[in-house]
Amino acid sequence: MIKIAAVQAAPAFLDRDATIERACERIAEAGRAGAKLVVFPESFVPGYPDWVWVVPAGRGAILRDLYARLLANSVTIPSDTTRRLGEAARDAGTIVAIGVTERNDEASGTTMYNTLLYIDEHGEVIGRHRKLVPTGGERLVWAQGDASGLRVHDTSAGRIGGLICWENYMPLARYALYAGGIRIYLAPTWDHGDGWLATLRHIAREGRVFVVGCSMALRFDQLPPELEFAKLYPSSREWVNPGGSAIVDPTGAIVAGPIEGREEILYAEADLDAASGANWDLDTAGHYARPDIFALHIDRGQHRLIDGN
Amino acid sequence: MIKIAAVQAAPAFLDRDATIERACERIAEAGRAGAKLVVFPESFVPGYPDWVWVVPAGRGAILRDLYARLLANSVTIPSDTTRRLGEAARDAGTIVAIGVTERNDEASGTTMYNTLLYIDEHGEVIGRHRKLVPTGGERLVWAQGDASGLRVHDTSAGRIGGLICWENYMPLARYALYAGGIRIYLAPTWDHGDGWLATLRHIAREGRVFVVGCSMALRFDQLPPELEFAKLYPSSREWVNPGGSAIVDPTGAIVAGPIEGREEILYAEADLDAASGANWDLDTAGHYARPDIFALHIDRGQHRLIDGN
Amino acid sequence: MIKIAAVQAAPAFLDRDATIERACERIAEAGRAGAKLVVFPESFVPGYPDWVWVVPAGRGAILRDLYARLLANSVTIPSDTTRRLGEAARDAGTIVAIGVTERNDEASGTTMYNTLLYIDEHGEVIGRHRKLVPTGGERLVWAQGDASGLRVHDTSAGRIGGLICWENYMPLARYALYAGGIRIYLAPTWDHGDGWLATLRHIAREGRVFVVGCSMALRFDQLPPELEFAKLYPSSREWVNPGGSAIVDPTGAIVAGPIEGREEILYAEADLDAASGANWDLDTAGHYARPDIFALHIDRGQHRLIDGN
Amino acid sequence: MIKIAAVQAAPAFLDRDATIERACERIAEAGRAGAKLVVFPESFVPGYPDWVWVVPAGRGAILRDLYARLLANSVTIPSDTTRRLGEAARDAGTIVAIGVTERNDEASGTTMYNTLLYIDEHGEVIGRHRKLVPTGGERLVWAQGDASGLRVHDTSAGRIGGLICWENYMPLARYALYAGGIRIYLAPTWDHGDGWLATLRHIAREGRVFVVGCSMALRFDQLPPELEFAKLYPSSREWVNPGGSAIVDPTGAIVAGPIEGREEILYAEADLDAASGANWDLDTAGHYARPDIFALHIDRGQHRLIDGN
Amino acid sequence: MIKIAAVQAAPAFLDRDATIERACERIAEAGRAGAKLVVFPESFVPGYPDWVWVVPAGRGAILRDLYARLLANSVTIPSDTTRRLGEAARDAGTIVAIGVTERNDEASGTTMYNTLLYIDEHGEVIGRHRKLVPTGGERLVWAQGDASGLRVHDTSAGRIGGLICWENYMPLARYALYAGGIRIYLAPTWDHGDGWLATLRHIAREGRVFVVGCSMALRFDQLPPELEFAKLYPSSREWVNPGGSAIVDPTGAIVAGPIEGREEILYAEADLDAASGANWDLDTAGHYARPDIFALHIDRGQHRLIDGN
Amino acid sequence: MIKIAAVQAAPAFLDRDATIERACERIAEAGRAGAKLVVFPESFVPGYPDWVWVVPAGRGAILRDLYARLLANSVTIPSDTTRRLGEAARDAGTIVAIGVTERNDEASGTTMYNTLLYIDEHGEVIGRHRKLVPTGGERLVWAQGDASGLRVHDTSAGRIGGLICWENYMPLARYALYAGGIRIYLAPTWDHGDGWLATLRHIAREGRVFVVGCSMALRFDQLPPELEFAKLYPSSREWVNPGGSAIVDPTGAIVAGPIEGREEILYAEADLDAASGANWDLDTAGHYARPDIFALHIDRGQHRLIDGN
Repeated sequence: MIKIAAVQAAPAFLDRDATIERACERIAEAGRAGAKLVVFPESFVPGYPDWVWVVPAGRGAILRDLYARLLANSVTIPSDTTRRLGEAARDAGTIVAIGVTERNDEASGTTMYNTLLYIDEHGEVIGRHRKLVPTGGERLVWAQGDASGLRVHDTSAGRIGGLICWENYMPLARYALYAGGIRIYLAPTWDHGDGWLATLRHIAREGRVFVVGCSMALRFDQLPPELEFAKLYPSSREWVNPGGSAIVDPTGAIVAGPIEGREEILYAEADLDAASGANWDLDTAGHYARPDIFALHIDRGQHRLIDGN
Repeated sequence: MIKIAAVQAAPAFLDRDATIERACERIAEAGRAGAKLVVFPESFVPGYPDWVWVVPAGRGAILRDLYARLLANSVTIPSDTTRRLGEAARDAGTIVAIGVTERNDEASGTTMYNTLLYIDEHGEVIGRHRKLVPTGGERLVWAQGDASGLRVHDTSAGRIGGLICWENYMPLARYALYAGGIRIYLAPTWDHGDGWLATLRHIAREGRVFVVGCSMALRFDQLPPELEFAKLYPSSREWVNPGGSAIVDPTGAIVAGPIEGREEILYAEADLDAASGANWDLDTAGHYARPDIFALHIDRGQHRLIDGN
Repeated sequence: MIKIAAVQAAPAFLDRDATIERACERIAEAGRAGAKLVVFPESFVPGYPDWVWVVPAGRGAILRDLYARLLANSVTIPSDTTRRLGEAARDAGTIVAIGVTERNDEASGTTMYNTLLYIDEHGEVIGRHRKLVPTGGERLVWAQGDASGLRVHDTSAGRIGGLICWENYMPLARYALYAGGIRIYLAPTWDHGDGWLATLRHIAREGRVFVVGCSMALRFDQLPPELEFAKLYPSSREWVNPGGSAIVDPTGAIVAGPIEGREEILYAEADLDAASGANWDLDTAGHYARPDIFALHIDRGQHRLIDGN
Repeated sequence: MIKIAAVQAAPAFLDRDATIERACERIAEAGRAGAKLVVFPESFVPGYPDWVWVVPAGRGAILRDLYARLLANSVTIPSDTTRRLGEAARDAGTIVAIGVTERNDEASGTTMYNTLLYIDEHGEVIGRHRKLVPTGGERLVWAQGDASGLRVHDTSAGRIGGLICWENYMPLARYALYAGGIRIYLAPTWDHGDGWLATLRHIAREGRVFVVGCSMALRFDQLPPELEFAKLYPSSREWVNPGGSAIVDPTGAIVAGPIEGREEILYAEADLDAASGANWDLDTAGHYARPDIFALHIDRGQHRLIDGN
Repeated sequence: MIKIAAVQAAPAFLDRDATIERACERIAEAGRAGAKLVVFPESFVPGYPDWVWVVPAGRGAILRDLYARLLANSVTIPSDTTRRLGEAARDAGTIVAIGVTERNDEASGTTMYNTLLYIDEHGEVIGRHRKLVPTGGERLVWAQGDASGLRVHDTSAGRIGGLICWENYMPLARYALYAGGIRIYLAPTWDHGDGWLATLRHIAREGRVFVVGCSMALRFDQLPPELEFAKLYPSSREWVNPGGSAIVDPTGAIVAGPIEGREEILYAEADLDAASGANWDLDTAGHYARPDIFALHIDRGQHRLIDGN
Repeated sequence: MIKIAAVQAAPAFLDRDATIERACERIAEAGRAGAKLVVFPESFVPGYPDWVWVVPAGRGAILRDLYARLLANSVTIPSDTTRRLGEAARDAGTIVAIGVTERNDEASGTTMYNTLLYIDEHGEVIGRHRKLVPTGGERLVWAQGDASGLRVHDTSAGRIGGLICWENYMPLARYALYAGGIRIYLAPTWDHGDGWLATLRHIAREGRVFVVGCSMALRFDQLPPELEFAKLYPSSREWVNPGGSAIVDPTGAIVAGPIEGREEILYAEADLDAASGANWDLDTAGHYARPDIFALHIDRGQHRLIDGN
């Protein structure tokens, strides 16, 4: 029996170091509550760049300024930032999976990825998945990741992995995780609501897995006042995003949440052993797979711009 | 704008010819209502062999008898049965997609498949898909199909195709349809309820397609009285299966149904041109596909037992 | 000595067939003037989707509607549309290179590419290059192409090829063309102005090639009145895009244009034999290349979603 | 905010020690003005061997004599000469990048390279790049360098690197620098004028970098009178080279210069943080790179004639 | 006993097809005289670009014009030109080794190499060696070859190979040929005189090989009158190059020539079997080699600019 | 400007101490004449064992006797013999390079090497090169040396080094010296005549070095009368070896000698600075080297029979 925590919280928007501070507090809190796996939303550090949906692409001056600010507050892996998260994970004795905007330290240094970062209970970085396809407006700030991090991690809390937001609509990417033996499936996101819940439940059934949907709760009054793009939203809205986190069990039943309109840590207990019984009549990447018909090739190589000494 | 009909009805259980009669009446009715695509449930002809879920596999005598009876009422393609369905389709001016238990005319002649049969508005058989993996108890009567029929059909009602019941939990099979440019996705089934609806909605969102869930409504008093297996159900139940058909649009919204506990033809209008706009931010087998990472090989060859002259 | 024509013109915005009509007239006119190569701007058919720069990504209803409309007026290769262009090219006795928004006929059918289409003077399609990376807001309508069309074509007008708009800032893509022996380099675009001209001149010098910059001239009063997005521009602007086409010779000298603020066919004579003399002191993909140090691997395979029979 | 200085000056032609004296004075002057990076032209020490463009290759006696003289005044790294430059850099508290004609101390000792030497503000040599391909007549005095020095240096003034004169027309070499995360791109040269300026501006846009073009200003009356080759120029010319230095920002705008016809130190302020915002819509070695298609192999090994103990 | 012919002749300067005509006549003549190996001078087709030694590199207009003219008359391998030489070789029953200016058909198409082309007595191209390092002024027209053609060819006339002009001062390149078992060493050249003869004799002794020095005899009145560069020579000179061909035996003795100041075919008989006796006291790449001390690595790979499909 | 002396003289045959006496006298004489480098022939101490060429190998008794006598008069390094040479060098203020037959003091003590010994103007031994491959009959007395002494020595007379007699036909050994930056190349020898002179001239051109060929002049009447092997020569010969020393400059021109038939000290002036100009068009181990293709590994380790403590 594993206790899972989904942290629905607000970052210190576009302030990496202050956001890390908040993350560490939440990790400690969840650790005290007995959680062995703590999940944070998509791009929790340093916040989801929601301006991509309200600032037209032609407004270059605004976009350049925000891009530079996001870049300055993005996360390099490894770095002092990941070290601090590692210490918090180690102190709390829990695995942490957290969405960050990552900087491509390996090449130009000015491109960013929407990354899900995994740190184990010893404080070590054990994996990093860069979102394969940013959605719609997101393409204005994030690049496409490669599949080098599309892996299931065998941890003390079971075999975990995940996809970010609408990546969860990529059947082949999900299949890669099922074929990796995933048991707890993480879905950090900015999405919420009815349709998204249907997807979380479908994935739980399709993969016979626990699904942890974790979304950010962020109010407009939590944005730094100098950010002009906030004026582009309807003034009647209170929430930039209301959250909507939920945890679903392998039968498709919602076992925690959904919660909207508040910051809160959602908890659920996962009995991984019992859950495997659900595979008797469906095992998508097992007896139900038809490998004589379907063969999926995945290039998990790291895309390197330059090779050489 | 295409009018779609999902026929939630009861077959004349284990009586092929009488069931065909009912089917033809429903086709005519839907045709009069303007439908250009009429969908029937999984194994409508000659009924879903639900005994596989209540007769223990060790009860050979009962199973042998029912197997023989099902075989005698199963459908060979082509045959007089398909000819009759073709005439009804032609007369009604509609495409018909209907679930049948199909007999393996090409080899032993004593194996059956759970097949989705396509007939166009000219009365011609345009396709046949044999369910790839029967689920749980179903494996006691149906064999595994090959992928020779896993195709999208370009019809006067748009590009249609489908998977049967829990095949819809096979991500690679669905992907094959998305990559075929499917617009109206058929999901004939025996399943129903909350979890299944979540899946229909997820598929609609994932594929940006109209999804037609079509299930059989069958009461115990509609079973031939001589069938002993009916006594194995709890006596309080009225419905062998209550139905649960529903039609979902490409945004994941339910636009017809779900209906349970009655026979009825469900109708919905599909505006395929407008629907394509929903692909701007997600096109699973298009701009969202990452073919540089994922390459799916599908063997769509017909599995032939003997090859040679 | 080859006469080159760059057509700076306005399409019939979002009306494929009417735009093709205009293209054919321009081809005929240029042919009468003796042109052996006629170049059209980026996405001339059915017009450049400039709304991506003014409609925020969050305005889903507007974007969906425009996406569906663009898709309905996009170009499949081959199709009746390409056949008509082919006839015009044959009748005029000229090669045609024209920017089109192409539909991915090979898979979902709902994804579009920013494509440069090549038709020879016999009316045959000889090549198609899909823009590798759409820029900024363009990512909201166009997908990323593969490199299967990144080729130099050996034609009766010399070795031609091209990159689209800001692809011209991809050094490795340009190098692929230089290494293919390109002599006339096409740069259809939506860009214009001082900085862009510097790039055209640099490319001419870097590659010792003729560079044909060809941009669209489009006034607001040429947009269909029902298109709401036009209201998002400052009302003082007359031109959606003023053009800015220019032709540069291998020394970097501008030999025709730049022209802005009018529709016009720009002509220039290219003496390819004499031009090769400029390679004596620079041949980027020849004696100046240092292949002992730099080896570029290009995957020119077609990205196929599904492989199989 | 970094202050950059480009020194457009004349060397004491073919007199290494006197030229170093002048360089040190200029370094001190720029340091007093607050510069943190001081750039000198191509082969500033001991002057650009312009005779290669006016003396025919068949005039062996003249060429041998000039070759011996250049060799005797060339720079070995490290040596007393580099030590003196280091002291000047340290005293002025600035990084120095200076073009020198370098002697191949590691082998025959009689071959020379066109080298860009980097010294940091502590006076240490941090890098050396030997021009990969001398251009045209330059091949009569300089050998081809290897890529062991083709690196970006992470300094207190940001990530700097550079290419020499027409190396800047090598797309793959530039790409190596972009992929190294370069922010300030140095282009010491002997070239000048319109076409060259277009190239500086293109590079700034392509790489989203500050570009420092730095050229030598040298009058005929500054050549030692005994050098006979000076008589081979038209007598009407006052300048062997008029200079033409300029500094361009990452948008392609010229922010200092170009200056011709005088010696002068050009200054510009570079705000590297703000500049990264320009990468939002173009990051050549980042989100715009397509590493799935293009993979560049660079051999950065040092070319050694003999290996062994 | 093999009869070797060294053709000291003048090309039809910068006229490829006419030069090929002359070459074919000479091949026929030598064949009639019983030669089994016919050697032509360096860049016989379409003539040695001697202007590189008299036109200063700064005279761009003249050099560009000559470069374009040379390029237009250079030789692609294979091509119609090599086919014609092949027919001549076959008809004469002799092997032909001929210097040509080759065009880099595999990449930019505008770079040239100084190539030694081998054709066997069946008319087939059996090898091609591109000069590794052009000398001095030659660097203004020819690029550096790779070592893919640095091979010894086992022919009916014995094991032959060669180096071009001052490549013969590259000890490691010569060693590559000795180690390949060369018996007849070809040295097509533009050089002549005392010093060059010493080198031919030294090579014969060092390698215990027959050395065929073959140089071009070309008078000024044989240059096309429109070539302006001819005026740059002293008017008293009659010969652009007087020839100087000679054949040396493995003891270092000159057995034919040297001849200067006339066109002529030089003949010598080579007794390869007898010659091998000279190896008893010296076998440079045999018992005299000391492989425990010296290990030479040669990269004979073809330098390819782009690798991929 | 350096004055070089080549001592063509006769040793006191097979009498080490008396030969040393003569050597010291010659060193003093040359020093008085201003020489800064004095070169002696191959195996000057205690004379070249020419009997290897006239006594058949089967005549064991004679050979044993001569071997023992040679061994007794051979030179150990260091020893009293080298000390005496050092004092002479120091007194004369000159560098000395002298051929000696060296005894293997480090192992059995009964093997001999053909060694070139270097002593500087302070009287110190600065180097020793043991001939790598004795030629033909020489293999009957001398062993093969290792490459631990195959070095260029940076002296007050410039960078000097050398190879012994037919080692000069080893291209890789010469290359090792060129790559060491050699300026004055010593070739002590027993050879002479036309062919050998061609080799000296070739080396000078190939390496752009001064070459000092130094041979022994020895008459039969200078042999000790008791040596029987002298009777095996034709009686008409006066000279065992007539000498043939010569000095060649870097252009290949003979600037002193050749002299035959007498003892004499040959002098030449070497202007090393001016000579480097000749490298402008050829630098074998510099710009002409192609290190991307050729990489020579040399094992310069000392060959030790036993390794261990």
